[in-house]
Amino acid sequence: MGATAQDPIHLLRHVRAIRSFRPDPLPDDVIADILEVARWTGSARNRQPWTFILIRNPATLRRIGELGAPQTTHVGRAPAAIAVVMSSGGTEVDAYDEGRVVERILTAAAAHGLGSAIGWIRDDDRPAAHELLGIPEPHRLRTVVSIGYPSAEGSRPKSAPGTARRPLDQLVRDERFS
Amino acid sequence: MGATAQDPIHLLRHVRAIRSFRPDPLPDDVIADILEVARWTGSARNRQPWTFILIRNPATLRRIGELGAPQTTHVGRAPAAIAVVMSSGGTEVDAYDEGRVVERILTAAAAHGLGSAIGWIRDDDRPAAHELLGIPEPHRLRTVVSIGYPSAEGSRPKSAPGTARRPLDQLVRDERFS
Repeated sequence: MGATAQDPIHLLRHVRAIRSFRPDPLPDDVIADILEVARWTGSARNRQPWTFILIRNPATLRRIGELGAPQTTHVGRAPAAIAVVMSSGGTEVDAYDEGRVVERILTAAAAHGLGSAIGWIRDDDRPAAHELLGIPEPHRLRTVVSIGYPSAEGSRPKSAPGTARRPLDQLVRDERFS
Repeated sequence: MGATAQDPIHLLRHVRAIRSFRPDPLPDDVIADILEVARWTGSARNRQPWTFILIRNPATLRRIGELGAPQTTHVGRAPAAIAVVMSSGGTEVDAYDEGRVVERILTAAAAHGLGSAIGWIRDDDRPAAHELLGIPEPHRLRTVVSIGYPSAEGSRPKSAPGTARRPLDQLVRDERFS
């Protein structure tokens, strides 16, 4: 494994959801970079079925934090968020591509020393979220990614309950499932 | 943007599907590292709804390449593949989590200088794939990620038609969608 692989691999191994942030704003070039990484995400038949809304207005962030609580509470505490609006949504392929682009955003944020987490908009809360952000049919919002510099509290998520992972010998099979 | 962010960001900006490989086998520690990155992927309620089958048997790889052609043809040319078996599948949340873990595998492979691509198992081909890999109900295989060192041909995917991306000014909105 070459030296060039070390830093990215270390990063990838340590990307964790962070939900507590310092109030510091994000530099514009950092935001642009995260969006650039998201832009290059692959998708089924290269449809790129997404639009990103960059949100920094504190009132809007707070409102999202409230309307989807508790799943979106951390968005209300963040200095910025990216809403991932899917062009249609409702199919498994859409959800698969959405997961891909969201994972890229989380990883790009971590590469810049930022914390981030998925804020999940439930079906019941979607009409209010769409109205708040001016999202028309047939577009569909399910994910709002909070982004910010981790607070001292937010940078210690690894020890939190529920963040454990199954060991590799349970997860991996050789050549066949069974 | 600090120096530590440079390499990972460069990597993230340049992860592209690569479908043509040299026959060289992958070192065991590299495979273990990619699986370790996959293991730490986040999922809804931390369910970790996946099992990974590591496939290096040439006959098995070739058979997957055939049964899902043309979407899986590149798997038949790869020295290794990871089949991402979902614990149940069929819901949007499963597909979202599957997209997340697949994106991590693609990125971890790129961090090691490897190429990789998604081999997509269509619904019609799933029974044959399940039989080949011994996957029982209710598990579900949709993604087989091919992995290998890029061939000279495979390392030039950027110029291929269909890999263009929409520009940021079409993709990004400020504060509201419209």
